[in-house]
Amino acid sequence: MVRKFINFFVSSDKLFVKELFKILGFVPVNLYLYKRAFTHKSLSSKDSKSKRYPTNNERLEFLGDAILDSVTAEYLFRKYPSQDEGFLTQMRSKMVNRKALNEIASHMELDVFLKQLGATRISQTMMGNTFEAFVGAIYLDVGYNRTKKFIINKMLRQYIDVHHLETVNTNYKSQLLEYSQKNHKTISYSVLSHYRTKNNRERFKIAVLLDGKSLATAEDFSKKSAEQKASEKALIQIGIISSNKG
Amino acid sequence: MVRKFINFFVSSDKLFVKELFKILGFVPVNLYLYKRAFTHKSLSSKDSKSKRYPTNNERLEFLGDAILDSVTAEYLFRKYPSQDEGFLTQMRSKMVNRKALNEIASHMELDVFLKQLGATRISQTMMGNTFEAFVGAIYLDVGYNRTKKFIINKMLRQYIDVHHLETVNTNYKSQLLEYSQKNHKTISYSVLSHYRTKNNRERFKIAVLLDGKSLATAEDFSKKSAEQKASEKALIQIGIISSNKG
Repeated sequence: MVRKFINFFVSSDKLFVKELFKILGFVPVNLYLYKRAFTHKSLSSKDSKSKRYPTNNERLEFLGDAILDSVTAEYLFRKYPSQDEGFLTQMRSKMVNRKALNEIASHMELDVFLKQLGATRISQTMMGNTFEAFVGAIYLDVGYNRTKKFIINKMLRQYIDVHHLETVNTNYKSQLLEYSQKNHKTISYSVLSHYRTKNNRERFKIAVLLDGKSLATAEDFSKKSAEQKASEKALIQIGIISSNKG
Repeated sequence: MVRKFINFFVSSDKLFVKELFKILGFVPVNLYLYKRAFTHKSLSSKDSKSKRYPTNNERLEFLGDAILDSVTAEYLFRKYPSQDEGFLTQMRSKMVNRKALNEIASHMELDVFLKQLGATRISQTMMGNTFEAFVGAIYLDVGYNRTKKFIINKMLRQYIDVHHLETVNTNYKSQLLEYSQKNHKTISYSVLSHYRTKNNRERFKIAVLLDGKSLATAEDFSKKSAEQKASEKALIQIGIISSNKG
């Protein structure tokens, strides 16, 4: 309580704290965590060789990514009580993929903090990664339940239109076909291998070819879903959609 | 408190509760969650068509998987303060991969519960999935912090030798080479494509061939790591190692 008061009214970081407060809805306590979250590796690497501990936001990003995934998992679990785990998994990847996080970070104007901490060239990917690191910092600062509240109220409900996402096209085969028709190219699929796993389940390895040249390959338990997976990879490679994994 | 007392001493499920208590270290409250966690889809599917909500453990598995990942992320984050996120990611995948979860579920004898709930043929994969669902049930029953305690004290510290895992061989190329030599086969690698991404980073797509036949392909920012990835996939395909992704 006292530290919050000092942070907000007295400390030399009070402007930083006020800007954070606008986003968080509460007064942060351990400011060094947030400063770390806004420190990109391109900055810390210059003088980090002499230091024992990494001082950039990559470790926080690892932590924040996991927290974000579990909060989103629970949010969806409760929001869709009658949907199966396939639906939940797909919805989550639509909600917290690289592109969505980049956009949310932009909406929250996290680039302001990155600049304050010395970043000059800020890419889209840096934004999304910074958002994850920010979530990691919040978690270490105030714990799981308050971070969950932040993620649900300030991120998911504010910036993500789940009802729209329910209907978003994840039929990658049809998207790829559309692309090929627009560009007067031909798409074909070929089965590279077909075998049985130890559990005696069939498995298909499929290549997707653009004008006869292999663009991507993928494996799955059915031909159809292997084709979908391969088409998704192909769309990422062409640059039509962005990777969720980034 | 009263419910715990009833569960433990009075309810018709008191034996179930006592067995759970041995594993959990506390008395569970909402028993239906645990029963759900131990209900495999092969059982619920028979009569689930008429029901509105899925009654097997797959949704809980989705939730538990996420909780497990985030608790493990924090555990590693704190245990290795000077390691970068690459190390943390690799350690986590060694700790909570499919095979490790299958083994932990066996140690905890979760098959006893699966049998109680009607399962007859219990596969290794079912065990690991059930462990994840169990974690999901614990989370919904007692919240994040107590689930974290359970995961750290009863799972990670008990069944996972992190110091051993630090040294585990993840040099898949050398493992594959070893396999090929033992079996008098030849391993070769070929570059399928080499291009630059939008960020102007090089990218390599590599195929690994066993006696000239393509076993797997993979992409990455360096030839060496694409070869590692492709070798890992090949080892999974041959059945030497098991997939982390389940």
